[in-house]
Amino acid sequence: MNPIKIGILGATSYTGLECIRLVRRHGAASIEFISSRSHAGKKITDIFPQLKGVCENILIAPEDAGERDIDCLFSCLPHAVSAQYVLPFIRKGIAVIDLSADFRIKDAAAYEKWYATKHPAPDLLAKAVFGLPEYYREEIAHARIIANPGCYPTSILLPLLPLLKDSDCAVEQPIIADSKSGVSGAGRTLKLTSHYFEANENISAYSPGRKHRHIAEIDQELSRAAEQRVRIIFSPHLIPVSRGILSTIYLRTNKSAIQCQKIVEETYKNEPFVRVRNQNDLPCTRAVAYTNYCDISFAGGVDGAPVIAVSAIDNLLKGASGQAVQNMNIMFGFDEREGLK
Amino acid sequence: MNPIKIGILGATSYTGLECIRLVRRHGAASIEFISSRSHAGKKITDIFPQLKGVCENILIAPEDAGERDIDCLFSCLPHAVSAQYVLPFIRKGIAVIDLSADFRIKDAAAYEKWYATKHPAPDLLAKAVFGLPEYYREEIAHARIIANPGCYPTSILLPLLPLLKDSDCAVEQPIIADSKSGVSGAGRTLKLTSHYFEANENISAYSPGRKHRHIAEIDQELSRAAEQRVRIIFSPHLIPVSRGILSTIYLRTNKSAIQCQKIVEETYKNEPFVRVRNQNDLPCTRAVAYTNYCDISFAGGVDGAPVIAVSAIDNLLKGASGQAVQNMNIMFGFDEREGLK
Amino acid sequence: MNPIKIGILGATSYTGLECIRLVRRHGAASIEFISSRSHAGKKITDIFPQLKGVCENILIAPEDAGERDIDCLFSCLPHAVSAQYVLPFIRKGIAVIDLSADFRIKDAAAYEKWYATKHPAPDLLAKAVFGLPEYYREEIAHARIIANPGCYPTSILLPLLPLLKDSDCAVEQPIIADSKSGVSGAGRTLKLTSHYFEANENISAYSPGRKHRHIAEIDQELSRAAEQRVRIIFSPHLIPVSRGILSTIYLRTNKSAIQCQKIVEETYKNEPFVRVRNQNDLPCTRAVAYTNYCDISFAGGVDGAPVIAVSAIDNLLKGASGQAVQNMNIMFGFDEREGLK
Amino acid sequence: MNPIKIGILGATSYTGLECIRLVRRHGAASIEFISSRSHAGKKITDIFPQLKGVCENILIAPEDAGERDIDCLFSCLPHAVSAQYVLPFIRKGIAVIDLSADFRIKDAAAYEKWYATKHPAPDLLAKAVFGLPEYYREEIAHARIIANPGCYPTSILLPLLPLLKDSDCAVEQPIIADSKSGVSGAGRTLKLTSHYFEANENISAYSPGRKHRHIAEIDQELSRAAEQRVRIIFSPHLIPVSRGILSTIYLRTNKSAIQCQKIVEETYKNEPFVRVRNQNDLPCTRAVAYTNYCDISFAGGVDGAPVIAVSAIDNLLKGASGQAVQNMNIMFGFDEREGLK
Repeated sequence: MNPIKIGILGATSYTGLECIRLVRRHGAASIEFISSRSHAGKKITDIFPQLKGVCENILIAPEDAGERDIDCLFSCLPHAVSAQYVLPFIRKGIAVIDLSADFRIKDAAAYEKWYATKHPAPDLLAKAVFGLPEYYREEIAHARIIANPGCYPTSILLPLLPLLKDSDCAVEQPIIADSKSGVSGAGRTLKLTSHYFEANENISAYSPGRKHRHIAEIDQELSRAAEQRVRIIFSPHLIPVSRGILSTIYLRTNKSAIQCQKIVEETYKNEPFVRVRNQNDLPCTRAVAYTNYCDISFAGGVDGAPVIAVSAIDNLLKGASGQAVQNMNIMFGFDEREGLK
Repeated sequence: MNPIKIGILGATSYTGLECIRLVRRHGAASIEFISSRSHAGKKITDIFPQLKGVCENILIAPEDAGERDIDCLFSCLPHAVSAQYVLPFIRKGIAVIDLSADFRIKDAAAYEKWYATKHPAPDLLAKAVFGLPEYYREEIAHARIIANPGCYPTSILLPLLPLLKDSDCAVEQPIIADSKSGVSGAGRTLKLTSHYFEANENISAYSPGRKHRHIAEIDQELSRAAEQRVRIIFSPHLIPVSRGILSTIYLRTNKSAIQCQKIVEETYKNEPFVRVRNQNDLPCTRAVAYTNYCDISFAGGVDGAPVIAVSAIDNLLKGASGQAVQNMNIMFGFDEREGLK
Repeated sequence: MNPIKIGILGATSYTGLECIRLVRRHGAASIEFISSRSHAGKKITDIFPQLKGVCENILIAPEDAGERDIDCLFSCLPHAVSAQYVLPFIRKGIAVIDLSADFRIKDAAAYEKWYATKHPAPDLLAKAVFGLPEYYREEIAHARIIANPGCYPTSILLPLLPLLKDSDCAVEQPIIADSKSGVSGAGRTLKLTSHYFEANENISAYSPGRKHRHIAEIDQELSRAAEQRVRIIFSPHLIPVSRGILSTIYLRTNKSAIQCQKIVEETYKNEPFVRVRNQNDLPCTRAVAYTNYCDISFAGGVDGAPVIAVSAIDNLLKGASGQAVQNMNIMFGFDEREGLK
Repeated sequence: MNPIKIGILGATSYTGLECIRLVRRHGAASIEFISSRSHAGKKITDIFPQLKGVCENILIAPEDAGERDIDCLFSCLPHAVSAQYVLPFIRKGIAVIDLSADFRIKDAAAYEKWYATKHPAPDLLAKAVFGLPEYYREEIAHARIIANPGCYPTSILLPLLPLLKDSDCAVEQPIIADSKSGVSGAGRTLKLTSHYFEANENISAYSPGRKHRHIAEIDQELSRAAEQRVRIIFSPHLIPVSRGILSTIYLRTNKSAIQCQKIVEETYKNEPFVRVRNQNDLPCTRAVAYTNYCDISFAGGVDGAPVIAVSAIDNLLKGASGQAVQNMNIMFGFDEREGLK
């Protein structure tokens, strides 16, 4: 069988780099083109020398990408930009996996509020599938537009959704998610907060409470699971690691930590990329770095105290490009772990 | 005026190192002896080469320390060990500042429960003053035994106490403190979790909920301020920085973030080492590293969401040795900032 | 075809962890046993939780390993210990790849001098092959004992050997290698220099000049290539990264940097794991991290100045376990890149 | 006595930040103005929130600085820019300490070659004193223009100058300096090599051999000491620490390491900021971080091998702002250690 042909928009981002690596390692996919708005004409190895011997393609302009014959497109472009560039591919019927936020929010008004821009194709929002395989595997298999989830949301939704969907499990609001992210989550664009001297030997909180854009998709998916309005309290922090997200989530519920663990274990028992750990073996980001795993534990909950869920992912893999390839595998009928072992 | 004479027990710990540096920089104190149980007879520069030209004393055995004539003793020994070694000094009437947990818990039974050892001098617990200058300055000035607060507790108590003491401010339980600490908090004793390869490029949660020993002193001081039983939910995390603690604290209250900020600003308006920041200028550990400051901000609290307090300290200074020197300054009538600017 | 069966001694070391990962990813090899002297009876996931779902074997005692039927043994035990434990396997004719230094030094007296212990089987030293595939591929294919090269030596030998073997290239002594290594090179055993607070935010030199044990194998291989006695000047440094070695090598030669580059390019033109870069594109450790590549550049050499070779490897992969698997692939006739892509 | 009045140009750089801190800690100097080309009108605490309570001045435009009455000016502006801005102050007879390279090179042609710009006031080059107190203390005391040395040059010149000046000590060329610098050396301007994800978990070599601009001043000062032309071979490396430079220097000489150590000890025996260490106690950057010390050791040199000097400084202090304040102390007759203890 011929490998499927892949195009990658925004290939010079960190998620683009990971997409390139994963596709090159994949047994049934090959790179047809990689594009960049600002580096078209250069070799990708001029940007990422580490790709020498791995992928030495010339970057093309995204405008020239439309003529290429591909089976599947990954867009690693930033939100607000991505939707415009993927539209022509969607119209040609090509499978599109959008790593930006542009197709994640079902409600065009909410999108406009959080992303401060009008959506260019609100009619397509209903057709896009939220690419969290553990919940939407069936829909993903038949979709043509995948809205690949955000990194923080993936780390928060995976431990919470089984509890919110369980009718025996009563979860009281507010649910509080205190998340810690490595600096790659801020992307490759230069900014002072990602400057080495500023980020190193430092921890900082930013956009605490109800301010971060990822709240839109977290609320949406929690509410859908709970079949009622849920509003997350979400405080992201920047920590000095290159990659990794740890979320510590506080929830008041009628279940004990061990009961929560059992519900989640049962939900994910056949999932290749979710590992439920014991409460004496709490997740840490090093254990999931360079993998597509999400690790989850439950603790606390004694004497009326909140149950505490701890989850860890690699923000560039299960939080972005790894999950994108997992979605591709589902869409094209491959082993879901192909390229991700 | 002659400088006061200082002795330091446990001088080869990281808090011992900081005590040496601070006393050497102090205009009215001098080091009379430094001691170590395991390195007696060596020069301190054999352990900490960076002290060359700063302090080149020979370490003595703690058993030999009792004969030295000193005005003030810092104990940087670990809990359970410290109380035994400081007792002879207390009995001689020497001012003792104990950086361990041994005199922090007023209730000997609680001490025994959390520290798994009987207290050797429970009668002295009532005489020891909890060395948080912002609350106990008067008592400190007249005390002979200072229980220097723990690092995590300092970061949690300073933002919370003004609110709990304010009779207009109603705070609902549970209060949740999600804290992140640098690796020096675990001390200089070798252990796998402080091994470079394990701690670097990693974030991990440990002892979440109601498991960490510092809960005893946090509960005690919060309850005392609130004049009712308060039980903190406290989740510490280990992050890859050498020094610094950031605490993110979630509380439900009848006050807005800005009202909380005003209460706290009013409380600390004359304090030399507490800086209240605006909510657009959240604390980070780099801004307090190598200083005795505690930075505090308030955010959140909109539409019924919890108010979020964020605080940052240097765990080795305001969280340990800096606060110890601040206490010494109060006890001996010096400018409170001496040695700490 | 059935996969070959692998045993791993010293599996709880960092090189052991990497061997487990690589074998699990390998298409034609399976783990038959993993052993540990101090953790026998535990699951490997108790030591390395990140292996959950990857390898969940029970660690056996090395004494019990001899009864297992295997095709190839990796020893990740420390020097002086390793030779003793692999001897029974060697005697049974099993292929042994020893990651320690025990079979690298051909001269038993030199081994005794540098490693301060008598070699337990000096007669086997002549039969062992120095496992640098780029030089000994033929011998490796027919060997039963592979002495897997040290991490520093791999980074120094790969750029230098082509020049020393080239009869047109005259290299003057001393050759100076200034090497910088990540902390994992010091292993998982607890020691103060690998303690986070000591290693973080620090660079230090150690054993400079002619003091480090790796000199024995570097001298041996350089001398063999040059067909005369060569003595390296070698200064290792510890830098705060988890993994990676960068070596900066100064040599005076009759060739320019570009001529050196050409010689080395020609030597390695068919090598799957050596990448020769241009002098405007100097190697860095991030570009080789988590890969089996060695990157090499040449610079300097103008107006009589020394030529400067810069090389980078991942010390745990091309500097240890990756090279071990490459050697295994050669011994068993597999694609040399299997498991290492 | 009234404190002297200080102005700081380029105050929003990292060296500017350190100058502010040091002057605020100084017992006989006060800040009269701080200026910034791009942030004039803002409070310095908007740029550096950590200065709250330390220095809360409003930044003025450098154009407005000329009217202020000051005793001493620190320029933390970049090279090529600095000379222009300090000229008016020089002409008014104000003591100027220029932390840029603009007054370091005595030869205007060499300046133009290395810095690719014509010097705006070549006539002043002869009047400027190279601000290395250990060598030019007398000249500094009477100078009006101090060319504060570069960070790399300080770390290389301090160990080498005593040997080159010693007529009994014959040093053969080439002298090789392999230097490793923390990321703050690259300044606060955003650039990809200082981006966290690029610099973290990475070591890289750059401008090796005879390419880095600091060669001009190193050659100049080495040649002056040796009274003959000396050309350094200098390879800088970027390592993932915030601050610190370690230089490992290889030189062939008729002296042993211990003899070199003695010469250097004798030279610096009364110097407050140079610490000569034994060869079993090699310098490391952590031991000098946040201090104005330069630590130096000598090793190697056995059996005809090169002697190896290792030196360490904090690049922002002894390598920049600390040395600038030391120079100010000499110029104004203060205790040389004031503000720097």
